[in-house]
Amino acid sequence: MRSFTKINYKIILHLMGLLFVVNGGFIVLASLVSFIYKDGVAWEMLQSAAVVFICGVVLMFITRNHRKEIQKREGYIIVTFGWICMSLAGTLPYIFTGAIPNFTNAFFETMSGYTTTGASIVTEIEQLPEGILIWRSITHWIGGMGIIVLAIAILPLLGIGGMQLFAAEAPGPGGDKLHPRITDTAKRLWIIYVGYTVAETILLKIAGMSFFDAINHSLSTLSTGGFSTKNNSVAYWNAQPVIQYIIMVFMFLAGTNFVLSYFAFKTKFSKIFRDEEFKSYLFLIVGLSILAAGLIYFKGDITDSTIAHPMVWGELESAIRHGLFQVLAIVTTTGFATADYTVWAPILTIFFFGLMFLGGSSGSTAGGIKIVRHLIMIKNGVLEFKRTLHPNAILPVRYNNKAIGQPIVFNILGFFILYMLSFIVGVLVFSWLGLDFKTALGGAASTLGNVGPALGDLGPTHNYGYLPDAAKWWSTFLMLIGRLELFTVLILLTPFFWRNR
Amino acid sequence: MRSFTKINYKIILHLMGLLFVVNGGFIVLASLVSFIYKDGVAWEMLQSAAVVFICGVVLMFITRNHRKEIQKREGYIIVTFGWICMSLAGTLPYIFTGAIPNFTNAFFETMSGYTTTGASIVTEIEQLPEGILIWRSITHWIGGMGIIVLAIAILPLLGIGGMQLFAAEAPGPGGDKLHPRITDTAKRLWIIYVGYTVAETILLKIAGMSFFDAINHSLSTLSTGGFSTKNNSVAYWNAQPVIQYIIMVFMFLAGTNFVLSYFAFKTKFSKIFRDEEFKSYLFLIVGLSILAAGLIYFKGDITDSTIAHPMVWGELESAIRHGLFQVLAIVTTTGFATADYTVWAPILTIFFFGLMFLGGSSGSTAGGIKIVRHLIMIKNGVLEFKRTLHPNAILPVRYNNKAIGQPIVFNILGFFILYMLSFIVGVLVFSWLGLDFKTALGGAASTLGNVGPALGDLGPTHNYGYLPDAAKWWSTFLMLIGRLELFTVLILLTPFFWRNR
Ligand SMILES: [K+]
Ligand SMILES: [K+]
Repeated sequence: MRSFTKINYKIILHLMGLLFVVNGGFIVLASLVSFIYKDGVAWEMLQSAAVVFICGVVLMFITRNHRKEIQKREGYIIVTFGWICMSLAGTLPYIFTGAIPNFTNAFFETMSGYTTTGASIVTEIEQLPEGILIWRSITHWIGGMGIIVLAIAILPLLGIGGMQLFAAEAPGPGGDKLHPRITDTAKRLWIIYVGYTVAETILLKIAGMSFFDAINHSLSTLSTGGFSTKNNSVAYWNAQPVIQYIIMVFMFLAGTNFVLSYFAFKTKFSKIFRDEEFKSYLFLIVGLSILAAGLIYFKGDITDSTIAHPMVWGELESAIRHGLFQVLAIVTTTGFATADYTVWAPILTIFFFGLMFLGGSSGSTAGGIKIVRHLIMIKNGVLEFKRTLHPNAILPVRYNNKAIGQPIVFNILGFFILYMLSFIVGVLVFSWLGLDFKTALGGAASTLGNVGPALGDLGPTHNYGYLPDAAKWWSTFLMLIGRLELFTVLILLTPFFWRNR
Repeated sequence: MRSFTKINYKIILHLMGLLFVVNGGFIVLASLVSFIYKDGVAWEMLQSAAVVFICGVVLMFITRNHRKEIQKREGYIIVTFGWICMSLAGTLPYIFTGAIPNFTNAFFETMSGYTTTGASIVTEIEQLPEGILIWRSITHWIGGMGIIVLAIAILPLLGIGGMQLFAAEAPGPGGDKLHPRITDTAKRLWIIYVGYTVAETILLKIAGMSFFDAINHSLSTLSTGGFSTKNNSVAYWNAQPVIQYIIMVFMFLAGTNFVLSYFAFKTKFSKIFRDEEFKSYLFLIVGLSILAAGLIYFKGDITDSTIAHPMVWGELESAIRHGLFQVLAIVTTTGFATADYTVWAPILTIFFFGLMFLGGSSGSTAGGIKIVRHLIMIKNGVLEFKRTLHPNAILPVRYNNKAIGQPIVFNILGFFILYMLSFIVGVLVFSWLGLDFKTALGGAASTLGNVGPALGDLGPTHNYGYLPDAAKWWSTFLMLIGRLELFTVLILLTPFFWRNR
């Protein structure tokens, strides 16, 4: 085993400082919105921005003499503490403006934002000032940006959960690889991310949303976050199907590998339709939506809910729309709701609960286990049968026409088992804290998968506000480990990580 | 890939004939009990025995000119169809005597018997004739015998779910290996199995059970089956703690690898306490029981149930006893009940639901995933963290001081994933058939793990009788695949299994 040098804490702190500075900048942006909409909290928001900004500058100044050397271990610490520091700094606008005065609640809301979970403790969302609403949505959007660079550039280097594989697959302009330099790759995908956000905002405005709602929902969609400006989430626009269809299109894009979007703009469509994960993703969305729509149409009763469901274009369209919308919302882990799917029919509760374990595509902003991992597990499962029958045959898993090395398959199986284990521990702790069977199961699946809405008392028409404080903290932990692909965070809890040899 | 000869169907049919003959013999035994207790169904039982016996003889006679050659593929077919044929033949006593006139119900009860699941469709158990009651218990006991020979001798040859490993570990008189010949190994363990059954019967009789109840519960305990002669299961003896403690001891032994019992009789105790699986098993039982007892004592209310809970030796002893009993009953997958644990406290429902995924020891009659698989998964999981940090280090999983080959670890991870997948499909189908959330989850976990009692409408004080027919058939399928370690049955559903090349 190779020996380590001591952990370079100075560069870690320096980068945390940088994140504070960036965060401060974004809070200034939100203050600007607050100022424009005259919601009366612009000054408090600016103060919180100043505090965060100054903290960042001081931290960067103190640690300016750092060794410019990042090894793997620093990588894990930077990613994990990066998300934690951002979440801590992000609470200030809530606390300074009094929108969410309680620290536990503010931290829950911010962590839920940056991890793009979208679970909320706010009961009366529509009474929040505009500056705070946009800040909630911005935390999602920053989180989404972070996830893209993490998935494409950082996690593969850290060797997390088979991510090496997808990074090696990520092709680009120079031959078959995206530009080799990490920052360039990230920039190209960020441009797409920004472009999609602008496009969705414009389309939603045209379709009849207010500009403010349009931009908030766009920030929330592309990051697969799910915060809404309305208590009823996207169900608020149940009488305007066009708005819901636009959101569906962008949820679909947000749950697709951004590298494929890049190919689309380069008109390399053949690359997209040869991608096994994309084919499965498309197939799953279509298949599951037909199933869900069928269940709603024939078995469920969509109007059996506290939410209004005007069937503006008829009952069939309504069933198809809500089926497709909820499937997209759960599979892409966005978590928007147009209906309380938990009251439709018992089978649909189980159905959507199961979907929480699917996850979107790799290289997207979606959370969860991810489709490519399921694909490789299924392929390996089938091969395991063949290996049982022919123990001496060498049968590697093939993905996108390439044989995959055993260590990567091992890594993916290990990820899945760790995910299930985290889920089980998640449920047990929630139960211990007093949540009932359904709520505990749904809550753990939803926070770990960064979905947002869950089941039971945490269903799409409820929120996390009523949870005891300990359960809120436990939720933020599950959101964090789920978002950072488990290993990144959990490795910090192993004793051998901190050993300097 | 090595080419196959055609499947030798004749020998398969010949062995099925043999199983029928054996089954007929056991039905004769049950008829004898029926005759002794003058329950009025002896003649009908004898008729069913005759039918089964004659079918077997005819089948054996027709196929007497078989090639004496069994390859792997025949192995899978023999095991799977062996269980199915036994279950079919085993329905006849129920049908001929009119105890369970409906074929679906009779098949459910027999499959539940032979797979040692112990889920029952009978609502008024105490009204069944003695001959039928003993037949139910005998199906458990035969099933348990089958499982021992399967685990120790057959599955390792078929390369199922890491079973190679435990077989190679199975040591014995000649040096460190049990007698190399399969039949001899099986016979030694069967003698222990029979001995334990006799011992438990005697002890239960002394402790105050009727002889009939004693023998039934002994057959049920050693096979980790769980059928009882009472509607309230072992809760019937809630006022006689000694009876319950005796059952606990034998549940513990039934969930222990029988090879270790063999060592105990050879006074090689050091071998037992060096066995990692046994140590974990012991540790888990003790730890989980303390937890359960604590939860019952401090949080739950044991008297909040339709079952009487006289606290003959005080409240503390009662909490400890019921905690220990239920932990043993679920971990060893016996499924006896002394209380309705689902009403104690919400956390206990989740707790026992989680335990259904644990399973007893390998080489025991217990079902479920099994402790050794969890051990190896956890060890591999920890190593996966180390591999992430040191990608070039070679870090094999070690079990009982030996390094385990990657194919076996792969096999075990594959087994776990297939188990979870089967569970998910199991739940989805149950939901589709109309079961509610809790009942579907509990039912799938319980039938797949061969536990017996589940949650919700299938909880310890309920039974499976009310299920729609389709759900009963689906239950038998889950019991079968769970009992035969998934691969054995599911491989028959793959197209490449039947290809002759
Ligand atoms: K979300
Ligand atoms: K059982």
